[in-house]
Amino acid sequence: MMKKINLPSQNTWTELCKRPAISLKTMDGIVQEIFDAVLASGDEAIALYAEKFNEYAGKDLLVSIQEIEASALQIDEDLKAAINVAYKNIYAFHSLQKTTAITLDTMDGITCSKKSVPIQSVGLYIPGGTAPLFSTVLMLGVPAQIAGCANVQICTPVNTEGIVHPAILYAAQLCGIKNIFKVGGIQAVAAMSIGTNTIKKSNKIFGPGNQYVAAAKQKAIEYGVAADLPAGPSEVLVIADDYANPSFVAADLLAQAEHGKDSQVVVLSTSQKLLEEVNEQLKIQLELLPRKEICEASLENSLSILFNDLDSCIAFSNEYAPEHLILQTQEDEKLVDKITNAGSVFIGKYTAESMGDYASGTNHTLPTAGFANSFSGVGVGSFEKQITFQKATEQGLMNIGKHVEIMAAAEGLDAHKNAITLRLASLKN
Amino acid sequence: MMKKINLPSQNTWTELCKRPAISLKTMDGIVQEIFDAVLASGDEAIALYAEKFNEYAGKDLLVSIQEIEASALQIDEDLKAAINVAYKNIYAFHSLQKTTAITLDTMDGITCSKKSVPIQSVGLYIPGGTAPLFSTVLMLGVPAQIAGCANVQICTPVNTEGIVHPAILYAAQLCGIKNIFKVGGIQAVAAMSIGTNTIKKSNKIFGPGNQYVAAAKQKAIEYGVAADLPAGPSEVLVIADDYANPSFVAADLLAQAEHGKDSQVVVLSTSQKLLEEVNEQLKIQLELLPRKEICEASLENSLSILFNDLDSCIAFSNEYAPEHLILQTQEDEKLVDKITNAGSVFIGKYTAESMGDYASGTNHTLPTAGFANSFSGVGVGSFEKQITFQKATEQGLMNIGKHVEIMAAAEGLDAHKNAITLRLASLKN
Repeated sequence: MMKKINLPSQNTWTELCKRPAISLKTMDGIVQEIFDAVLASGDEAIALYAEKFNEYAGKDLLVSIQEIEASALQIDEDLKAAINVAYKNIYAFHSLQKTTAITLDTMDGITCSKKSVPIQSVGLYIPGGTAPLFSTVLMLGVPAQIAGCANVQICTPVNTEGIVHPAILYAAQLCGIKNIFKVGGIQAVAAMSIGTNTIKKSNKIFGPGNQYVAAAKQKAIEYGVAADLPAGPSEVLVIADDYANPSFVAADLLAQAEHGKDSQVVVLSTSQKLLEEVNEQLKIQLELLPRKEICEASLENSLSILFNDLDSCIAFSNEYAPEHLILQTQEDEKLVDKITNAGSVFIGKYTAESMGDYASGTNHTLPTAGFANSFSGVGVGSFEKQITFQKATEQGLMNIGKHVEIMAAAEGLDAHKNAITLRLASLKN
Repeated sequence: MMKKINLPSQNTWTELCKRPAISLKTMDGIVQEIFDAVLASGDEAIALYAEKFNEYAGKDLLVSIQEIEASALQIDEDLKAAINVAYKNIYAFHSLQKTTAITLDTMDGITCSKKSVPIQSVGLYIPGGTAPLFSTVLMLGVPAQIAGCANVQICTPVNTEGIVHPAILYAAQLCGIKNIFKVGGIQAVAAMSIGTNTIKKSNKIFGPGNQYVAAAKQKAIEYGVAADLPAGPSEVLVIADDYANPSFVAADLLAQAEHGKDSQVVVLSTSQKLLEEVNEQLKIQLELLPRKEICEASLENSLSILFNDLDSCIAFSNEYAPEHLILQTQEDEKLVDKITNAGSVFIGKYTAESMGDYASGTNHTLPTAGFANSFSGVGVGSFEKQITFQKATEQGLMNIGKHVEIMAAAEGLDAHKNAITLRLASLKN
């Protein structure tokens, strides 16, 4: 069960905030091997490694339009309705994230502007194996759709029945994605990084995956391809006081713990009583969960910490920079303004973290491992880049020219200066 | 001189767009050694490596307030005025980049919001050696100031006179930066990545530097620290037609070429005559430049390409994804709308690229090596991250609960489902 800590002094926080280290270096050999093979022989290499790893090794990697269209008939009406609600909420909230272009005359005759332009080609990796992560299709497909990326493709391994789960296809269809390939693992990421006859080279790759996929996403940058976020196991931090419902707190902790044995869950409280009740609830609820064993393992990495006051809880949380932060206190609204580092925040006792995982409208692709102190979760902006523009008139050149000449000379860059000098001279003729 | 290519067929473009490869792997040994040393012995390790590399190895790494304040008296009035103008323009344009929070009730009782929060601690690396890059202080310091980062620190090597150039100090003072450390090279980046008694651990590191600095910035991610942009030599692509002034085009190419022998410059035109005149102008202007040798070397890596029409020029440029794109044609405004990949764009014959390097208001820290297809240049957003929030009321839980339960069950995540089930059950009591 969770490690219990009482009133830790501030000089121990850095150590307490350390995540279980993950090193992807040991996988570098096989990752490089597969990237080299895909570079050398494209689709053939994919087939070779699919066979080797006991994955789908058919000729037709592309899911047919018929399969995609049939997906809506193959899933329960309830699930379809739920996916529709999730799509609508995610779409609505992400639509507000479109930025408007800005423009400003910084001086008379000098106009600067900035606008967002969609990333042309993006690749979404959707894990398939044991669970069909259709929710991740929505979380990546919707912002790509809103950004207007010209080419959106999905790579996903087939399930144990040898097909892509219809819920994945249905979610992809909602997002307008037609290019879905039955490829998983390192070879999928290699294909999207390099390009083959079948799979297009992407400019940026998104999505979760096992450590092999994570290591392959790190490799992609060497091929000029960006990745969404640094890899790390999922995590949650809950701040709760006497007002909180211990059963809800325990349920939220377990919802995180079930992701994997390397997940980390943390609960901070000003109430010893609450922490004890949460602990009791964990034991009770654990017994009923199919993934009990996974939960138990991840609880071993996890912390239950007593603090004197809620300000200390928030200060610790800001140092920890959790992927998910849940607030269940009497002062939620006051605490919200003090948050400096977190991926996504769930406020109040009715706001289960699983709402945000699926359907509330926020994105579930979030920074882990403390990277919430510098990275944002995925949003529409993750599928765009911003380009700046500037235009000088004759008047603008006259207004700014001298200053640029002086600065270029002071930095010892005479050719920079000369580009202005020649233009200024032309005005005098 | 530049390599001349006539009407290249589209299947050769990918090859033509390849940048000279840079590998930072060979530096990994010394980078890891210094990171390990800084982790083990902090400031002592910095002093050790400063001495080893013949850099400032005094005890007092921090530039004193007196030195900073004296800087304004030590630089020419003209330069001070120029820096003031640049600061004002950069500040004005970047101020528009602050994002406003968004909030939306995606369903009755489900409120989602998103807001930007400054990255708490940022480190700016400013190269010192031969040229005092005060312009980079402004380009990084101003957006950090506007974002409101709580801790902004600069590491910069001392110059040949053993001091930090007063123009760097003056620019830093304008940006409200007080923590300036006389440390350069790998050990500076290691110190900002790990933290020492003197230098604070940063959450994100910004700034240019030589290959050692670039390799160290790549290492930082292993210590939980983000970096601004992938490394790569600076580059420009010019699209010009008969309307362009060949002397200006040549001057802009040389302004880029003088950055370093690995810089790449590209000119595309629909006019053979213009390309020949540009070539003549390059020869004439080269002779007058102090950095002639550097320019000659980088022109050897460079391309002069004839195309049939401006649409092909833009299509090639979009594939190249240049850091800087200069348009000098009769159809500039039409071309602007067709740009999909570029860092910063300079429109029209009076808009020298050096204006953007120093003073127009746009940022000069831009994606290189083709990464303009997925990365934005530095802006206020680079110094912030965005946090999402959500809150469900009882009504919200009732509206969304069932859907979340169904989706969680379909993904095989029962604890996720249970976090909703328990809450729904509590409403019935």
